[in-house]
Amino acid sequence: MDEGYHVAILGATGAVGTRILAQLAQSTIPVKSLKLLASARSVGQTRQFKGQVIPIEEAKPTSFDGVDLVLASAGGQLAGELLPEAVKRGAVAVDNSSYWRMDPKVPLVVPEVNPEALADHHGIIANPNCSTIQMVVGLEPLHKAYGLKQVIVSTYQAASGAGQRAWDELLQQAQQHLNGESQTAEILPTKGDKKHYPLAFNLLPQIDTFQDDGYTYEEQKMMQETKKIMFGDPTSTQVKVTATAVRVPVPVGHGESVYVTVADESATRADVQRLLAAAPGVVLEDDPANQVYPQPLNAVDKRETFVGRVRADIENPGSFNMWVVSDNLLKGAAWNTVQIAEELAKRDLIHSQV
Amino acid sequence: MDEGYHVAILGATGAVGTRILAQLAQSTIPVKSLKLLASARSVGQTRQFKGQVIPIEEAKPTSFDGVDLVLASAGGQLAGELLPEAVKRGAVAVDNSSYWRMDPKVPLVVPEVNPEALADHHGIIANPNCSTIQMVVGLEPLHKAYGLKQVIVSTYQAASGAGQRAWDELLQQAQQHLNGESQTAEILPTKGDKKHYPLAFNLLPQIDTFQDDGYTYEEQKMMQETKKIMFGDPTSTQVKVTATAVRVPVPVGHGESVYVTVADESATRADVQRLLAAAPGVVLEDDPANQVYPQPLNAVDKRETFVGRVRADIENPGSFNMWVVSDNLLKGAAWNTVQIAEELAKRDLIHSQV
Repeated sequence: MDEGYHVAILGATGAVGTRILAQLAQSTIPVKSLKLLASARSVGQTRQFKGQVIPIEEAKPTSFDGVDLVLASAGGQLAGELLPEAVKRGAVAVDNSSYWRMDPKVPLVVPEVNPEALADHHGIIANPNCSTIQMVVGLEPLHKAYGLKQVIVSTYQAASGAGQRAWDELLQQAQQHLNGESQTAEILPTKGDKKHYPLAFNLLPQIDTFQDDGYTYEEQKMMQETKKIMFGDPTSTQVKVTATAVRVPVPVGHGESVYVTVADESATRADVQRLLAAAPGVVLEDDPANQVYPQPLNAVDKRETFVGRVRADIENPGSFNMWVVSDNLLKGAAWNTVQIAEELAKRDLIHSQV
Repeated sequence: MDEGYHVAILGATGAVGTRILAQLAQSTIPVKSLKLLASARSVGQTRQFKGQVIPIEEAKPTSFDGVDLVLASAGGQLAGELLPEAVKRGAVAVDNSSYWRMDPKVPLVVPEVNPEALADHHGIIANPNCSTIQMVVGLEPLHKAYGLKQVIVSTYQAASGAGQRAWDELLQQAQQHLNGESQTAEILPTKGDKKHYPLAFNLLPQIDTFQDDGYTYEEQKMMQETKKIMFGDPTSTQVKVTATAVRVPVPVGHGESVYVTVADESATRADVQRLLAAAPGVVLEDDPANQVYPQPLNAVDKRETFVGRVRADIENPGSFNMWVVSDNLLKGAAWNTVQIAEELAKRDLIHSQV
């Protein structure tokens, strides 16, 4: 592959797809050719890549003929249908949807945490849930140093995590509210459920649909994916994880209040800050005296995960509170996808699995 | 006091003061006369109370001559200066500021939780911090039934908790953002600190100023006040409490993600829901199948605390996640203040302490 890879982006016109295109243009991946695939209704549009104008093509099984690498963000249904077709044709696919994540044959990868899992791929690699990615980037340095015991997370998730239309809806609702009009809601909290509520100037403690135990699928994803990424098994009992996921009226940038307990009770706040400052993919923003802490507005368009507000739980040695923010469309989606592809290329793992 | 009380509202023109006036008008407290006190710059204004037009007077020590009951929301400095003057003149004062809360002679009261503490007052009763009040209303039924062991809370606090000007600033910033203008910030995250950041479409993990251990005073208040209200002592070791306080772009209505561990490990999700449904001051909104859960927009102008999203931590018997929402200006301030006064009247505790 001296001359590079034939690459396809599936779902190239969405909020994440357009960012995959931009991240790919800035990546170290040598691109020999690029196909942009989307649904039939986007055909006729074009996108630019490194000065070249590329037409949007309708995604079909035969679209993947001759393709080496697929970067996909087209939702679970299309990922389930089309990615096996791509693999059958010799491609390796990195997928953003939740469809393949719990498949034992599919590595679920955050390059700062478990790049070695890529070696076992069978053609499909899954990109984790946005809120999981930024959390494990912040947890991994503590786990390496002290051993992770328990995680209790409350999320503050941006509207764009539900797609471009949810993002647009938030801005429209905000203007309606400021005009003194009643707010219209057709998408949020989630397209997949029956009722819709305004998010602007409000909080919606529902992301994705509900399970019988009262947790949402988003919360379940955070619990299972954290275990699969950090311990190789979504049902691992080596760590306990529980989550509450809340949508907040922010366009881009997820916040997370993370309570973490490590095995080594001698760990101090200063130790944790030092570890985070040195960790890959992490920017420590933790200077209370100068009011420096992570904020979504400052994280937009950045690839890093920002961690701050590190505090020891005075009553529980080995337990810490911290505040984690990242651009959910970049590290939470497009950048992590392209970063996985960079790792695959570096490790020479982009080969036909047929 | 057959004919009622001579009442004064201190700080009558603020976001909380105007709501104390409205709550008092709907309360069971017999009001013989009402004085509205504020700073000199509000003199000349009037307010209505039960059809009567009442002028705003400048607050001075002599304002409290002949007053039986003071309802105060004028900030810590004025509370420190003026309320002892009121008590000296025979009044009983309920104060909203944090100034008196940790004084061992001052009861800190949430009527659903510790009304019996009122009996020990020496003239001043403190109203707790807004985010503490709604949390303890939700925790008390679990504590009574099972015994409380640990609380880990992450807050989603509305702009109005920082006052009317912060609320106005949020709306102005939102319009600036929607117009594509840069956002101006002069108040938030807190008037008491040097730097100011936009809250609209953002998250600010700072409420009040910072201590040396990295916690904000808001977070410390939640830890200490919870212990004083529920266990009679702000340093009680009977329960562990830790908090992360975050300001969110919502005008009114605080949200809280509360992780609670009780001593009885046999407690089930259904038990907890049943207890909350029957608890005073609580409305259980917990029907995931019909997407029913607490939202700030629905809690505005309500006196109750709304609790939902109750879930058992599958990996930790006796631990539960729940989501708590209340109007921070009513139960978190004005209503709790008037409710304390109703309790004082009911228990015949409005007497001169001189």
